[in-house]
Amino acid sequence: MTTVTMDKIVSLAKRRGFVYPSSEIYGGINACWDYGPLGVRLKNNVKRAWWRAMTQMRDDVEGLDAAILMHPRVWEASGHVENFTDPLVDCKVCKGRFRADQLDMVPCPDKPSKHPGEHHCELTEPRQFNMMFKTFMGPVEESANVIYMRPETAQGIYVNFHNVMTSSRQKVPFGIAQIGKAFRNEITPGNFIFRTREFEQMEMQFFVHPDESEKWFEHWKEQRSAWYDTIGIRKEKLRFHQHAEGELAHYAKAAFDIEYEFPFGWQELEGIHNRGDFDLGRHQEYSKKKLEYFDEVTRERYIPYIIETSAGCDRTLLTALIDAYREDVQAGEERDYLAFHPSLAPIKAAIFPLVKKEGMPEIAQKLTAELRSRFEVFYDEKGSIGKRYRRMDEVGTPFCVTIDTETLSNDSVTVRVRDTLEQERVNLSELRGFLEARIG
Amino acid sequence: MTTVTMDKIVSLAKRRGFVYPSSEIYGGINACWDYGPLGVRLKNNVKRAWWRAMTQMRDDVEGLDAAILMHPRVWEASGHVENFTDPLVDCKVCKGRFRADQLDMVPCPDKPSKHPGEHHCELTEPRQFNMMFKTFMGPVEESANVIYMRPETAQGIYVNFHNVMTSSRQKVPFGIAQIGKAFRNEITPGNFIFRTREFEQMEMQFFVHPDESEKWFEHWKEQRSAWYDTIGIRKEKLRFHQHAEGELAHYAKAAFDIEYEFPFGWQELEGIHNRGDFDLGRHQEYSKKKLEYFDEVTRERYIPYIIETSAGCDRTLLTALIDAYREDVQAGEERDYLAFHPSLAPIKAAIFPLVKKEGMPEIAQKLTAELRSRFEVFYDEKGSIGKRYRRMDEVGTPFCVTIDTETLSNDSVTVRVRDTLEQERVNLSELRGFLEARIG
Repeated sequence: MTTVTMDKIVSLAKRRGFVYPSSEIYGGINACWDYGPLGVRLKNNVKRAWWRAMTQMRDDVEGLDAAILMHPRVWEASGHVENFTDPLVDCKVCKGRFRADQLDMVPCPDKPSKHPGEHHCELTEPRQFNMMFKTFMGPVEESANVIYMRPETAQGIYVNFHNVMTSSRQKVPFGIAQIGKAFRNEITPGNFIFRTREFEQMEMQFFVHPDESEKWFEHWKEQRSAWYDTIGIRKEKLRFHQHAEGELAHYAKAAFDIEYEFPFGWQELEGIHNRGDFDLGRHQEYSKKKLEYFDEVTRERYIPYIIETSAGCDRTLLTALIDAYREDVQAGEERDYLAFHPSLAPIKAAIFPLVKKEGMPEIAQKLTAELRSRFEVFYDEKGSIGKRYRRMDEVGTPFCVTIDTETLSNDSVTVRVRDTLEQERVNLSELRGFLEARIG
Repeated sequence: MTTVTMDKIVSLAKRRGFVYPSSEIYGGINACWDYGPLGVRLKNNVKRAWWRAMTQMRDDVEGLDAAILMHPRVWEASGHVENFTDPLVDCKVCKGRFRADQLDMVPCPDKPSKHPGEHHCELTEPRQFNMMFKTFMGPVEESANVIYMRPETAQGIYVNFHNVMTSSRQKVPFGIAQIGKAFRNEITPGNFIFRTREFEQMEMQFFVHPDESEKWFEHWKEQRSAWYDTIGIRKEKLRFHQHAEGELAHYAKAAFDIEYEFPFGWQELEGIHNRGDFDLGRHQEYSKKKLEYFDEVTRERYIPYIIETSAGCDRTLLTALIDAYREDVQAGEERDYLAFHPSLAPIKAAIFPLVKKEGMPEIAQKLTAELRSRFEVFYDEKGSIGKRYRRMDEVGTPFCVTIDTETLSNDSVTVRVRDTLEQERVNLSELRGFLEARIG
């Protein structure tokens, strides 16, 4: 029976090089994290799977990579300067700082069994705090030079709507996909890499005729719900929630959340929204540039509606880690392993010489060099074979290939499968094909 | 005879969706650029080629992806708070602002035939301007909460030296590679995407015993110089320059530049540096954490020397665009095309039905769907076949595959090669292998 806790995940992540606290030698920096050797591979694999499904496999979605620093008027048009705020209260006694709407979700720093406001607290009136990080471009720190670190990637897509459509010769309906960093000066970040001040989004904005927005909203709900299955996330840990009318954000005509059951509860992984003509309408108003679409067939001119799919890259990575975590007992020994989908596994295959003699290391190294151009592989000759298996289980390597005595006589190797623990003998000449068929 | 100018490159880049001015509908934002559908693919291909060569193909280099926001002490230790400055002068007459050390490289805004200081200018005394963008973390704007947007990615590697070494079980000599964004509040950015305020670096820091630093410096000079050949950059446009002792930065024991001949002159693409023990020594001093390496075999304890290879991702992309640009005359008609190395090409193959009838579009669409899971392909049925070839030439697609009358009778297609204009007939069942052998 597997019990996955955040403590186990955070500890495994650090020990094996998935995620470290940022700037740790200086005591860390609140809610920023660095991805280690296996973490960056896992993250790249998540991004690649998303990018491939959203752009490469479709001819109606184009990619984009807009800058983090944008013209400040963008954030006036989007409403972020005015509305991207959280209500903030301070406690004059303990000097704590809290979101006024989340007091019942955090402990009082002076008395953790109580919530802020329940103890001897003196809370200030809530004030609105804008969550955009701001800085100055150019050498003079004056308001004319204020710029923001983008709090979301979507606006980079909206302001490029015409540029992308024209240069790619797309016609409505079509979409624009983007992966990139965004920054929010959150008052209460937390839950490891779930809510951080610096994070990466995977967003797609799909431009449609207003009359077709409902049809496309349904299309993207289905597509995005199905995607998590393709990267191996267990269906029973996902749930879907369509917002009732009263729950909708000001820009949304319809909203659908994909949620995952984290150890800290059900939380949003991705949102699918029908944003109507809010975004292009606002940018047309603020930029004074026409952002209408002209349909050459119907001779109709209109502002397209937008169906948005907005997923968190770090959250998907966290989900992959948590969802893959398993504990079992093998031959009386406890084993913990990550049952990653092969497409996400940071190491696809490990290559071991059974012993450090009889030419086995040389054969194993030669095989490693051959496979390396095709897969991310790992050579290991240190420790007992059981120990080497365990180390690979712990980081989710789906296949371990061992060069043993039989290899010397008939060129076959042992392939040991992480999840089933089955061992198969495969001829060296067929190994690449064997792995390709199972890894993709 | 090809004459490549920046105007041609900037115009092609915008028209075909490689690079757009950022926030263009709001008049743009100085020295920030957005990558369009083909630009983001080209950039991903550059990054993938670098990452593959630097990490996947070696067992002595680990990857990392550190946060952009780091602890502010990092930038005290690195020297950036004190020294990362440019001398700035203002002209009281024209209100221009210039780098005091580059006055002879820019025109006077009031009289462009002169340089600042040569006309009726009144220049202020130079003052030191720090190029780090700063912001505040948390809701209070006070000096204790100042953080910086990292001006380079290298420090993220240094502060994680121990974490990476421990979790990956590497021993010196080994390296850490990272691709990521950095930000510099440049006084005079320019030359399109060559010098921008937001940019992406591809850096590797290799940790070695001090006695071996010269050997590894030579190793990395060779490796990095050879890499540009693997992505198709012409050798005659590259040159190498080893710094004499007087030219070295304060942290460098040796430095070697890889330069490319841009339309605006020879400029640095990449720097390879022997940084000695400066970086780990400083972080050990400022963090009070031991950053020594203990050699279990020799029982020696020392601060490793660092050999750094630091390349610009946007610069490499610009180089790829410029270097690939060709003009020729075909059948009396001018043609401009991008002779990208197949590994960099944003579209690997285009699929055309010769005419929009006789079932050719259906065959071509089926082929597109089949090839799509393996390559980035593009289906086009609009316009004459000659026009379709030209559109693909212009964005550097190495192969165009046409479904024609012969396809209907014998299942063969025409493959037309961008650079040689040769046409080959290939059987449909062999096409995937044909392309794989040529694209990799």
